[in-house]
Amino acid sequence: MTAADAAPTLLQFSGAAPPAETIPAHSLAVQTVAVLDEDREAAFQYPPIGRYLGDPALRQQLGALHGTDPDAIFVGNGSLQVLDLLVSLLLRSGEREVWVESPTYDRALEVFGRHGVRLVGIPMEPDGLDVEALRLRLRSGPPAFLYTVPDFQNPTGVTMMESKREALIELAATYGFAIVQDIPYRELRYHGSMPPSLADLAGPAAAARVISIASLSTVLSPGLRIGYALSDPETAHALAALAESTYLSPAPLCQAVAARCLAGDVLQAAVGRIRHVLRPRHDAAVTAVRSRLGGALVTIPDGGYYLGVQLRLRADETALLTAARAHGITLTRGSAFYPPCSPLPADRQFLRLPFHALEPDEFAHGVAQLARICAQFAGSAHS
Amino acid sequence: MTAADAAPTLLQFSGAAPPAETIPAHSLAVQTVAVLDEDREAAFQYPPIGRYLGDPALRQQLGALHGTDPDAIFVGNGSLQVLDLLVSLLLRSGEREVWVESPTYDRALEVFGRHGVRLVGIPMEPDGLDVEALRLRLRSGPPAFLYTVPDFQNPTGVTMMESKREALIELAATYGFAIVQDIPYRELRYHGSMPPSLADLAGPAAAARVISIASLSTVLSPGLRIGYALSDPETAHALAALAESTYLSPAPLCQAVAARCLAGDVLQAAVGRIRHVLRPRHDAAVTAVRSRLGGALVTIPDGGYYLGVQLRLRADETALLTAARAHGITLTRGSAFYPPCSPLPADRQFLRLPFHALEPDEFAHGVAQLARICAQFAGSAHS
Repeated sequence: MTAADAAPTLLQFSGAAPPAETIPAHSLAVQTVAVLDEDREAAFQYPPIGRYLGDPALRQQLGALHGTDPDAIFVGNGSLQVLDLLVSLLLRSGEREVWVESPTYDRALEVFGRHGVRLVGIPMEPDGLDVEALRLRLRSGPPAFLYTVPDFQNPTGVTMMESKREALIELAATYGFAIVQDIPYRELRYHGSMPPSLADLAGPAAAARVISIASLSTVLSPGLRIGYALSDPETAHALAALAESTYLSPAPLCQAVAARCLAGDVLQAAVGRIRHVLRPRHDAAVTAVRSRLGGALVTIPDGGYYLGVQLRLRADETALLTAARAHGITLTRGSAFYPPCSPLPADRQFLRLPFHALEPDEFAHGVAQLARICAQFAGSAHS
Repeated sequence: MTAADAAPTLLQFSGAAPPAETIPAHSLAVQTVAVLDEDREAAFQYPPIGRYLGDPALRQQLGALHGTDPDAIFVGNGSLQVLDLLVSLLLRSGEREVWVESPTYDRALEVFGRHGVRLVGIPMEPDGLDVEALRLRLRSGPPAFLYTVPDFQNPTGVTMMESKREALIELAATYGFAIVQDIPYRELRYHGSMPPSLADLAGPAAAARVISIASLSTVLSPGLRIGYALSDPETAHALAALAESTYLSPAPLCQAVAARCLAGDVLQAAVGRIRHVLRPRHDAAVTAVRSRLGGALVTIPDGGYYLGVQLRLRADETALLTAARAHGITLTRGSAFYPPCSPLPADRQFLRLPFHALEPDEFAHGVAQLARICAQFAGSAHS
């Protein structure tokens, strides 16, 4: 019996959706019915003119959640759409260069690609962005902005340590570039304590230049399609003006449901539940990778959805992914997380291993299969 | 007593939202609850991977509605978002010129502006696009695409007559340019019969080059934020790929509600109700403009939301809008409907008068005020 026979259903080692059991579908349904009872006419009509910043009740709740002025919050159709609008805004000056962690979130790279920006990758270290490499690069001038996922990064799981955050803020102030921090996983910490947010470290005076993008997809419901930006009122209004001439606004019903969920502590309960479900998955995943893949783990994330591994092997990536499918597992192409034209190490293969949607034994099975594939490729390299 | 005193609340002569009484909020709420009862987990989760064309049940219903292959339908976040993605797609060849009716839908002009296209206006006549002007212009080469609102155009109310539709299709085939027809008002006919759609005239073989954009906002509910494109499967998939890297998908809940409303004849009933409510408003509005503004009416629309008027006066537009506000009415700037750099006639002022959301006596009051303002400006021109 081959491994493929043993696993006729492919193990999704590639998913990004939160596990169904962590989405409070019942509470969301209850709040939806409450919105329909309360003001169904508004739910099915256009938002009132001038309300393109987002539902005022929702912005009020998000302001309370983040300790931010509601007028500095822009609500959009998911965080990727917010990033897309933000790129349009931040590139208005004509500067076309954007710097990213390397590797970084693959869909963000796609957004940047569509805007035709010049992408520069700054290496990622196990404790965050390589700030010394950033400092060196800055000698030849700053980018329009730097994009970072500082907490439990997708795809590496890395969190930026506090001293690097301080150094980054200082460099941004010195060289005059904006920071866009994407923080979808920040609340999903399973061990230890959170380093301060880049926005908090920079302080309110820098709110226009240290912009946060967040999402309700990871902490409440992806189906609501609600992401938002935390910045200053001027940036929020500029984003709203762009949204108004692109898609107008997120569905008013979804915004009203989200506002009720935040007010009624549905989100807070959901975050507790997510931590409860994902903590053991995280711990088991770390153990499995350590026992089967040696020192390949980039870091112990202590939160989020992903483990990153650097496999020590020389392999054609397509052949590796094909072999993985034959062994019953689907993987996301590791090179997709690197900016185009980045030099990739010849003797290593990066992979993102999502642990959040798999039971510990499923994850362990996937890692065992991966270990077999690695052995197979190591063998073929010697032949 | 001044006119402003008589109308302390501003009469919105500028709205675009459907009247609340034509949105079947109760039925929409019933269908929403049905979706929550049936599959709330799917409603609050990401759509399944690969489902970025839109909810299959909704595309099935839309296919039946339009007599189109569901695989040729792409569902997006409102029709403006669909237009935005379509512009990205159609400009991929590098051709940067887009031709539009002049005047045309102001928000479409904003979308084109953001994409940095070169806009060329083809004059609008009372029976549609000036096809002879188009033919002349084509001698120096075709655009990437021509954008038209052929039925009850926003802002003029003009419908393109059948012979012009045939001529346009022939020119597009001869010179090799795409046609994007925006048809949000097509079902809202209050008198007479519909000329064939440009897509039907062109036939299925031309589906990739005669693309329709439609919306549920005018016929069911703007709050669902659902627009769609009818084309061919290749275009639909290309749009879905762009959507996937921009905002992923419209809210699954909204799509499922829409699918149920189409299956359960809620949309069909809503269209009947809209025609019933808007027909007398249309008729009274035409009468009011004819009696108070002489020959200013561009055409008798027989459908849609808007009357267009060309006022014979030489006036600074800002002064005119300010005077209108002083007389208790808000107007949309008429020049906003013309592509940038279009020559505007010096002795006329174009205005869009939406009749759909005003009771006949409100509309008549607004037109009477407008007549007074015109007289005032005519007087000041002589002084």
